[in-house]
Order: sequence, then C-alpha cells, then structure tokens
Amino acid sequence: METSASIRKRCSLKQELSGRPVEAERIRAVLDAARQAPSARNTQPWRFIVVQGEEAIDALVEAAFPGPSAIIGQAPVLIVACARPEDGVTRDGKAYYLYDLGSAVQNLLLAATDLGLVTHLIASFDEEQVKRVLHIPDDVRVVVATPLAYPRAASYDEAAAERLRERDRRGLEEVAFAGAWGAPFASAAGTAAQDIAPV
Amino acid sequence: METSASIRKRCSLKQELSGRPVEAERIRAVLDAARQAPSARNTQPWRFIVVQGEEAIDALVEAAFPGPSAIIGQAPVLIVACARPEDGVTRDGKAYYLYDLGSAVQNLLLAATDLGLVTHLIASFDEEQVKRVLHIPDDVRVVVATPLAYPRAASYDEAAAERLRERDRRGLEEVAFAGAWGAPFASAAGTAAQDIAPV
Repeated sequence: METSASIRKRCSLKQELSGRPVEAERIRAVLDAARQAPSARNTQPWRFIVVQGEEAIDALVEAAFPGPSAIIGQAPVLIVACARPEDGVTRDGKAYYLYDLGSAVQNLLLAATDLGLVTHLIASFDEEQVKRVLHIPDDVRVVVATPLAYPRAASYDEAAAERLRERDRRGLEEVAFAGAWGAPFASAAGTAAQDIAPV
Repeated sequence: METSASIRKRCSLKQELSGRPVEAERIRAVLDAARQAPSARNTQPWRFIVVQGEEAIDALVEAAFPGPSAIIGQAPVLIVACARPEDGVTRDGKAYYLYDLGSAVQNLLLAATDLGLVTHLIASFDEEQVKRVLHIPDDVRVVVATPLAYPRAASYDEAAAERLRERDRRGLEEVAFAGAWGAPFASAAGTAAQDIAPV
C-alpha cells in the first residue's frame, strides 16, 4: 500500500478484531518496521512483548485491561511496548524514551495497516498488573499496547470506512504555524507558493 | 512509494540538503500526514512551526543550533515540533505529549521520504533560544526539529544509499520478546508458525 494511504487509513479498530491467526512472518514484519525508527542518540530504547495464545491473552487482559478495553482480548496477538527510561535520553526534563516509542510504534501500526491488519492503540491500563503478568522489571515503563488482528469485515478498507469518516482532527491552520508561534501556516502557504519553481 | 519502503528508507541525511525550494503543497502534505497520527485521548498536542527564508533560518540556526547541527541551515525549510505538556495526557508520570509527537513526526518523516525529500531529526538544541526566536510561549516545550529539503544527489535513493548500508539497529531478538520479558521472540516465532493456517 502507498505510504500516504497507510498514514491516512491507520485508525483504531477494536470492534473489528477477528480471531483468525496472524502469521508469524507478519508479526515479525511489523516488529521489524518498529525497530527501523529513529531514536535520540540511536539509543533504541523500545522493547516489545508479543502475547499469543488464549490463556496468556486472557490472563493479561483480565489483570490489566478492565472495562471496555477488555475487548482487545478477542485478538490473537497483543503487543505491549515498553522501555527502561534510563536506556533513553532525558534532556531538560523531556524523557525521549516516550518520543522514541511513539516513532517506533507508529512504524508498527503503519506496517500493520499496510498488511491489512487492524490495531488499536491503548495507553490506559493497570501498569503494575501488566508488569506482574509479563515479568517486566521494576525499572521498565509500559507505555502502550495494541492488539494485532485480521479484521472481521472482508477487508481492512471495509473495516475502517466508518471510523475514518468520523475522524476528528484539528485543522492544519490550528497545528501548523508559519515562521513563528501563532501565525497559521495554511494561509501563508498560498503566498509562499508564488516564489516556488515548478518541479 | 510502498509503506514498507518508506519505513526502511527513512534516515537522517543532513549532509544531503540541497537549497532547491520545496513546494508549499509538499510542505502541506507532510504536515497533513503528521496530524493523522493517533494521540492519547485524541488530544493532538502537536504544533509545528515552519521556518522558511534565508534570513529566518539563519537567525534560528545561529541562535539555537550550534556546532555540527548548524548544517541544517542549508535546507530551504526547517520544521520545529513542539507541544504544551498540559495539552496532552500525563499518566503515572509518563508525559504522553512526547509519545504523541513521536507518532506525528514519524508520519511526517515517512511522508517526506515518500515525496523524495530528505530530513534529519534533531533533539539537541538550545530550547530557550528556539522559543525566543520563534515566539513560543513559556509553557510550550520544543521537542524535535528537522530540515526538509530535496537531496543534493540525483535521487533520494542515491542520497540515502550509504547511510542505509551503515544502519545500526538492535536485532529483533534483542527488542522483541515472546510472552514475557526476556524470552526472544525470533526463536519462538518458528514454533508458533506451525499452528498457523495458510493465508
């Protein structure tokens, strides 16, 4: 799938998790995409725990993913992303292990979308219980988790259609500024374009 | 470009920044990719400042990007990514605005790669000077910056070839675990594959 399509189509689809097994080579492919990400001073602080099998998934979900998020237990694969903050760079109070995991997991989610697999990023869980169940060391932080599954619908596009129609994002003019904080980029872009030579 | 190719080919190329103007529609495209990213509780804390024009770029680089990183001033566009931590979610000491920016900027970098543009993620700069020059409010943190440019070489692939040959990443067995912390995923995957039905 084209890069721009994966970026546009990736969305959270916990209602669309089928139990159909996900092949090991596809799991490896999404993990391989994750580890290509950049990281501060190339520290690569990311670590992924791949949970498979009904018993293991039930134990994790029951302990750590209460309420509506328990639905992720319908997936054949759960991936838990974590890092030891000390493995990453911290600068002026900014803990870049979190930034680096965001980059790596975004690669993973886009690679999954490209393979027709659905995901659903979750940052809300009982971290202590995740660590207990998965034997994660005390000094490691659990940052996000996602199921990895084939969609219930006939295709990824069908599974994602409604969700994408409802997508709610701030407009470009609200998040992008031209030259200084607060000056919308969108309006400035029209002017700047006059000076630009054709490709 | 295929998603998997963009993920594999994205790399840091500050030696490859040509001064050729980058069209406004391409700048908009990479910013649009950024804002499609997921974020904790959909807070979308990311904000981007697009700096263009020799005078503005020189002022920013001289003030805030000393030493070897000053080379980014050769690009026709600098993008500074920042966020107000209070706009994002903080849970158990984990400030997800950093995670969310990682996701959004990864989208941006992949979209740039897809368009044949080179980038170079930088997390080391004088944050107070960046904020002064770009009129960024006190309660906003500057997280990363990247130049956006056409390559000096004839193509992105040519520009990136050597850098990609030298890519240094931890192996899958070091970053991915099967079922619990510490058990390498790579070796376990072979076993799991036996139970998997053909696609």
